[in-house]
Amino acid sequence: MEKFAMYGKLIAHPGKRDELAEILLEAAAMLRDNEDCELYIVNVSDSDPNAVWVTELWSSQDAHASSLQGADTSGRALIAGAEPLRLKPLGGKGF
Amino acid sequence: MEKFAMYGKLIAHPGKRDELAEILLEAAAMLRDNEDCELYIVNVSDSDPNAVWVTELWSSQDAHASSLQGADTSGRALIAGAEPLRLKPLGGKGF
Repeated sequence: MEKFAMYGKLIAHPGKRDELAEILLEAAAMLRDNEDCELYIVNVSDSDPNAVWVTELWSSQDAHASSLQGADTSGRALIAGAEPLRLKPLGGKGF
Repeated sequence: MEKFAMYGKLIAHPGKRDELAEILLEAAAMLRDNEDCELYIVNVSDSDPNAVWVTELWSSQDAHASSLQGADTSGRALIAGAEPLRLKPLGGKGF
């Protein structure tokens, strides 16, 4: 099975970015024991004050999809939009 | 010092994507012993046949900048464009 990667861009409602980032960091902590989740890094940018990017790497696309079931939805009200970029990771350092 | 992350999107000349990806995978292998480089994952996408994305995580922005000095330029002729997205990683799994 091929690994699955994603750059999950989320756009927070104005003023809600940091709160959203905190929720996503909590989500990352919850994934600590999920062996299918290899990376779940939360990022922000100086150039876009409303965006949060999550760098994701999973053992498979199915594993990623499964993780969304029952996922905590407490952040949903903070999110104005989402622009996920799904990728096929080939290899490299940290792969 | 804050860590530094980047989604390095490179657009290859038509038909050159796979060759560019191979060169970047070699670059990743060369970074194996660089302790400042935490991630250097090479990705492609089904939706964009010319693009390669490199998921990068460095101990600092300076460390990333230093790595570019003396970097192998053999891939440059394959690259039609670059759209780097520089990020501030906050934390998470794999951070």
